[in-house]
Amino acid sequence: MTETVLLNAAWVVPVRPRGTVFEQHSVVIERGRITALLPTKVAQSRFQGVREVNLGHHVLLPGLINMHTHSPMTLLRGYADDRDMQSWLREDIWPLEARFVSPEFVADGSRLAIVEMIRAGTTCFNENYFFPDAIAAAADSAGMRACIGLPIIEMSTAWAETVDDCFARGMQLAESYASHSRLQFSLAPHAPYTVGDPTLERIATYSATQQMPVHMHLLETAWEVQQSLEQYGKSPLERLDANGLLDERLLAVHMTQLESSDIETLAQHHVNIVHCPESNLKLASGICPLVELLEAGINLCIGTDGAASNNDLDLLAEARAAALLAKGISNDATQPDAFTTLEMLTINAAHALGIEDTVGSIEADKAADLVALDLNQARTLPVHDVVSAIIYSAASAQFSDVWVAGRRLMKGGSLCTLDEADVLARAVNWGRRIAAGRTVA
Amino acid sequence: MTETVLLNAAWVVPVRPRGTVFEQHSVVIERGRITALLPTKVAQSRFQGVREVNLGHHVLLPGLINMHTHSPMTLLRGYADDRDMQSWLREDIWPLEARFVSPEFVADGSRLAIVEMIRAGTTCFNENYFFPDAIAAAADSAGMRACIGLPIIEMSTAWAETVDDCFARGMQLAESYASHSRLQFSLAPHAPYTVGDPTLERIATYSATQQMPVHMHLLETAWEVQQSLEQYGKSPLERLDANGLLDERLLAVHMTQLESSDIETLAQHHVNIVHCPESNLKLASGICPLVELLEAGINLCIGTDGAASNNDLDLLAEARAAALLAKGISNDATQPDAFTTLEMLTINAAHALGIEDTVGSIEADKAADLVALDLNQARTLPVHDVVSAIIYSAASAQFSDVWVAGRRLMKGGSLCTLDEADVLARAVNWGRRIAAGRTVA
Repeated sequence: MTETVLLNAAWVVPVRPRGTVFEQHSVVIERGRITALLPTKVAQSRFQGVREVNLGHHVLLPGLINMHTHSPMTLLRGYADDRDMQSWLREDIWPLEARFVSPEFVADGSRLAIVEMIRAGTTCFNENYFFPDAIAAAADSAGMRACIGLPIIEMSTAWAETVDDCFARGMQLAESYASHSRLQFSLAPHAPYTVGDPTLERIATYSATQQMPVHMHLLETAWEVQQSLEQYGKSPLERLDANGLLDERLLAVHMTQLESSDIETLAQHHVNIVHCPESNLKLASGICPLVELLEAGINLCIGTDGAASNNDLDLLAEARAAALLAKGISNDATQPDAFTTLEMLTINAAHALGIEDTVGSIEADKAADLVALDLNQARTLPVHDVVSAIIYSAASAQFSDVWVAGRRLMKGGSLCTLDEADVLARAVNWGRRIAAGRTVA
Repeated sequence: MTETVLLNAAWVVPVRPRGTVFEQHSVVIERGRITALLPTKVAQSRFQGVREVNLGHHVLLPGLINMHTHSPMTLLRGYADDRDMQSWLREDIWPLEARFVSPEFVADGSRLAIVEMIRAGTTCFNENYFFPDAIAAAADSAGMRACIGLPIIEMSTAWAETVDDCFARGMQLAESYASHSRLQFSLAPHAPYTVGDPTLERIATYSATQQMPVHMHLLETAWEVQQSLEQYGKSPLERLDANGLLDERLLAVHMTQLESSDIETLAQHHVNIVHCPESNLKLASGICPLVELLEAGINLCIGTDGAASNNDLDLLAEARAAALLAKGISNDATQPDAFTTLEMLTINAAHALGIEDTVGSIEADKAADLVALDLNQARTLPVHDVVSAIIYSAASAQFSDVWVAGRRLMKGGSLCTLDEADVLARAVNWGRRIAAGRTVA
């Protein structure tokens, strides 16, 4: 990672400046950081004798950022489908989690997710699950960048018995990684219906003093809004506002139940919204009004959600679903355009996580979090418009190479930091264990 | 194709009987037809010394059937995006087609589409484009099964100057393939706004006498309905009914503008509906009410539409989009379930094309149109439910092997009947020619 490397690509889409596409350009990496973006001929004459990676059929992009997932839930992928959200959660997922979730489950599920995400061009993920220590360790050893949620839920779980335990264990974990260059932490209250007001207020205080993002499921279903009105006499957004949580550190996930007045409030408070269209559709939760949110100037990002409700971690496909769905439900084929969609996967996500100075675009002095997508395949030819090819045509299987902070995590389709065969074998084994558990139950 | 072959798979999903999944089973192929589906151990003892193909991590399925596409439009993929349907068609696509469409364009574009479709597990496609002779030749030499539309449009095109020419050239082509085992033909009137009543009536007569399907864009946009009311004083459906076209041979594509009374009419007349969710969303045309149509007992199929409006020919991803969108807009996460979605890709499509006795399921005496999907990848592990893995998790890149009528079109990810490098090189070249044309224009 200390050597200088030239990545020579057929196309580079740096995301910033907006809308630019460079042909036959090179990204220069030195000590894990991007130091220049130059025409390949210029770069080759300026940096003679350095190592070069030729990506002659590829577009080089900033690494994609998955803004909402529960990595270990890969092990529950396809366990229960075609159910509405509350039945799915209460009758299928929660009982299964109570039975199986352990540090070993979380470590194996996280590695499975990381394999899938690297293969899908993802360099950073915004996570929320139990045993965040095991997730952080998996991300660290795989070389991924991540924002690890410290789960807060007012139910006894295998990770923490009480809310006090949630804070204590979470803060201890965050401190243990305090100087880490790739891992950061968020406070992750589960949802309005599982976290009370005193806890929300406490989270607001921690978030302000520690400058930590707050990562929360919010306005996911009509049921959630109704439940809040019944229990608290307030909507979930009113509760968050009353407890001081509506600000630029909030990563509000789902947001399918929005009134026009809510959108103004969210814009005024610079709240970030994470749209998970496939999970919302699959659980029939509702549809986040992406075009209205964009028009209100809200910072929008995209997440896959966990594999149990998606059922994959394919962020490029998720972005395509987001763009197509937004056009369809707004009756306006012009919004969002392909480039705006790409921003949601990159620079908008970096902004939401507070790491816009480090990642999210290909610019000098940023970390070399880069992904190469091979466009010389039937599915993406001919290339009339490279951004259209990325957003509307490419399959995630076309990602060939991935770098995080200059370290190569995938090389020509082979993973460099994980024993993939072992990860897959463990997943198969968990499938058997869970199936045996289901039979017994 | 005359030898006996055993395909030994970890799972077989034959589609018929409904809902069945077999583990460690073998499909026996003899003379291009399926002759048995047996436990692998039984098959191996009964058929000793025959060639075996081991698909130890795979699920074997009936080949997928893409029920609406314009194959040559792969060459226009990504040429114009983020535009509404009528502007896209009139300002971008039609002028470009007038300039470039030729037998050479159609042959090269068809082969590009066929490469993409075979790689995506597609064994049969329902086509509509100019120069159907070139498409038929491409499908024939690649070994694909297809229903080739004979285009009928009341505009002068490079293929035919008048409607009379459309019929004459079309019928001549259909006759030249009359005894072909893999190719059939449909009458393909473009849309209600480009075909008048006398032509519709003539199509109905031909369809009845020749027993040919009628493949038509229908109720795609609100504009189309309005235009019909203004010009004819009737809705498009009323016009088709008046001209005798509402029957079991009609393949009605899109159908986003349906009233409840229309759904009853369509069900009574056994009209087949082809849902193209991604194209409809991307062009903001409207949304086909899949759940209501299923509940009415209508035979539903799925098409990708052309790559210019999709922008890929990935039928599995299209099916996932169809299922997720239907759940989301109906507020019912239970419909359609994964198996019902798989039926739309296989047996329902075979029924619509009138070839249900030949393809659409893995049953004795049907043609060996089969596809193998490798599930031993991060994205589809663990396999808690194999049909869920196919519909909700798998990427089309996981298709490894494809057979049509027992002939292998893809073997372990390599195409057997096409020179893929040549097909891709020609696509790149068309990209250059079209870009140069745009600059000049």
